[in-house]
Amino acid sequence: MIIAIIGLGLIGGSLGISLKNKMGINHVLGIDSQSDNAVKALKLGLTDEIVTLPEAVKRADLFIVSTPMDSMVKIIPELLSSISDNQIVMDVGSTKMQLSEAVRLHPRRNRYVAAHPMAGTEFSGPEAAIPNLFEGKYTVLCDVELSAPDALETVRLLFSVLNMKVLELDSKSHDVHTAYVSHISHISSFALALTVLAKEKDENRIFELAGSGFSSTVRLAKSSPDTWIPIFKQNRDNVLDVLDEHINQLSQFRSLLIKNDFDTFHTLIEEANAIKRIIS
Amino acid sequence: MIIAIIGLGLIGGSLGISLKNKMGINHVLGIDSQSDNAVKALKLGLTDEIVTLPEAVKRADLFIVSTPMDSMVKIIPELLSSISDNQIVMDVGSTKMQLSEAVRLHPRRNRYVAAHPMAGTEFSGPEAAIPNLFEGKYTVLCDVELSAPDALETVRLLFSVLNMKVLELDSKSHDVHTAYVSHISHISSFALALTVLAKEKDENRIFELAGSGFSSTVRLAKSSPDTWIPIFKQNRDNVLDVLDEHINQLSQFRSLLIKNDFDTFHTLIEEANAIKRIIS
Repeated sequence: MIIAIIGLGLIGGSLGISLKNKMGINHVLGIDSQSDNAVKALKLGLTDEIVTLPEAVKRADLFIVSTPMDSMVKIIPELLSSISDNQIVMDVGSTKMQLSEAVRLHPRRNRYVAAHPMAGTEFSGPEAAIPNLFEGKYTVLCDVELSAPDALETVRLLFSVLNMKVLELDSKSHDVHTAYVSHISHISSFALALTVLAKEKDENRIFELAGSGFSSTVRLAKSSPDTWIPIFKQNRDNVLDVLDEHINQLSQFRSLLIKNDFDTFHTLIEEANAIKRIIS
Repeated sequence: MIIAIIGLGLIGGSLGISLKNKMGINHVLGIDSQSDNAVKALKLGLTDEIVTLPEAVKRADLFIVSTPMDSMVKIIPELLSSISDNQIVMDVGSTKMQLSEAVRLHPRRNRYVAAHPMAGTEFSGPEAAIPNLFEGKYTVLCDVELSAPDALETVRLLFSVLNMKVLELDSKSHDVHTAYVSHISHISSFALALTVLAKEKDENRIFELAGSGFSSTVRLAKSSPDTWIPIFKQNRDNVLDVLDEHINQLSQFRSLLIKNDFDTFHTLIEEANAIKRIIS
């Protein structure tokens, strides 16, 4: 099987190196609109060969689209129009509703499998790609009833080779859930970084004191706007809902501090501690 | 030198085991108002011996007070009243203004050294104690001009043995800075945990999707309210200032989402990315 990866950043590059390691694939073809990214990816061994998209269309069995979300909604319908009925297109996008709309009426919709491997780091670009990024984590497959059985089977095989667990959701639920378990964490980190950076202007030395707790809560603030703005744009309504809830929770803490109501605050922290049962 | 550690939780216990490992001290005396904690600490080798406070006052050269902040403001003045002019009292508290007020007029104020080793985890109690918790990190010493030179020298020696770097601040600045680099991160995590737990009531499976980014931003929400409520109480005004700023930043994001102003949002994320120069 020949796999073409379109977009050789953190996720695309990590898929390339992982699949090369795990499947012993002879040819992972790489495509990137930025030629310097392509050169780096080839040097780093994330792909065996750099090709043009038309060349990939001639040779690849499976296409993995791993560009930012705004490009993805353009590339995937175009790609579906170029391929044959034996080829498969898969994406790894963080939002799914707009993508699903973009391909809904496409005559070759059933050659497309909507996937979202829930893995990432705060870094981006081919230099950030690492093997084993996906090991043991979850992939969401969306709207599986709209994909052809053979296409679905190939994609499942790919994730099983990567040792990922698979969860099925419809696109709408996927976008609600990721707003809670991923997108709001990024919003919160970006805001926290801006909060402390605003202070730093006056107080240069304070960050010598920043401990591991601080680093942990703001590390996602290193994430690329080119990745995240298209995600926030495409999942705007869900992100707004969760953000409203988060601002409400913070405002509640604020009000308890103002009223010196530390008993209620204590109870709320005990409730927050229940997060222990969710994250280890 | 005999060291008495009062409060054998995460910080006190970690100091006990680290000092035993590093200084080859024969006797680290342990005191804890909760006898089960004391028994655990002894079993875990965090202390050589469990004693009563009056016994420790007879034998120890240096007292390290590592209880929650609300007990600390009571214990430290009492302890200063019990010791001789050769003994030293040190604390490891996360806030400093109220403590400094509590000892300001004490006739033995100069036997007290205000310290805050900037190290911790989201866990608490003697089971959470680990060696090397302090390795390479910063300790803040506050209001050093109010401590006797020999007391200060002993405390500096102790932190140098733990391989910690020392920074001097006045109590007031300390409390402002820690609100930024530590306290707000905890508030943010507690609120984020409550935000997603509120959702979880309807959607049991969503947390299968929670990735490392989510875990990173909410891990501090596991922290104990018994540790943190006294900190928020004692540093209320500074925490309120930073919380206001943080709510403003989040509200700004909210307003940009509502207006679909993703260009400004992009610029703000680029600004937030500057956090890279502060955390590695």
